[in-house]
Amino acid sequence: MTEQFAATPSPPYYAVIFTALRTAEDAGYGDTADRMSELAKTMSGYLGIESTRGPEGLGITVSYWSNEEAIAAWKAEAEHQQAQERGKREWYLHYELRVARVERAYSGPHGRTKPGSDRP
Amino acid sequence: MTEQFAATPSPPYYAVIFTALRTAEDAGYGDTADRMSELAKTMSGYLGIESTRGPEGLGITVSYWSNEEAIAAWKAEAEHQQAQERGKREWYLHYELRVARVERAYSGPHGRTKPGSDRP
Repeated sequence: MTEQFAATPSPPYYAVIFTALRTAEDAGYGDTADRMSELAKTMSGYLGIESTRGPEGLGITVSYWSNEEAIAAWKAEAEHQQAQERGKREWYLHYELRVARVERAYSGPHGRTKPGSDRP
Repeated sequence: MTEQFAATPSPPYYAVIFTALRTAEDAGYGDTADRMSELAKTMSGYLGIESTRGPEGLGITVSYWSNEEAIAAWKAEAEHQQAQERGKREWYLHYELRVARVERAYSGPHGRTKPGSDRP
């Protein structure tokens, strides 16, 4: 991912916060995760994604969406539904998924250029 | 951290999503981060925290709070204010902070026991 931060617009918009602990084996997870990142970008209302995973297997992915309808359409997307099912069966020991309405947003520190971006 | 997932109540509640890219040097960051995690737990309205950092330095920390008043009190806490200032000066190349109202939440996969928890 060349851009680690999501270039979201002014609030309000929506965030899907997905916290997950992986199983030990990859079993196609990496390829599917990459494919889902690309597929999400093609969805109407997609605003961006921020994702990281620590050495102990805990991952947090936050995807940003214009509205609830866009989130519902992404949840129902056919290829994404297959990935969700594999995730439940094979890839995740546990996950928490929260849908939240972003009310306020800030960037910092002031005076530094954002890495990987041409924006100040 | 013994508990990687926050045991949040039924929505609505609030999430503070903090995505940050660290500078290379530690410069006391680890000790301060641990201290802030302990201090946050003592605040009224604190519900829990989920945090991870990848090998390339991108960290996502999501803290959960009962209401906006609790978030404002935590932001204004004196020792936390000092940590925020050091973060801006020394520890972060860039960060995005978003305050969001959690509307819906789900756990999974069904039928698996949550790691590090005595809850089903």
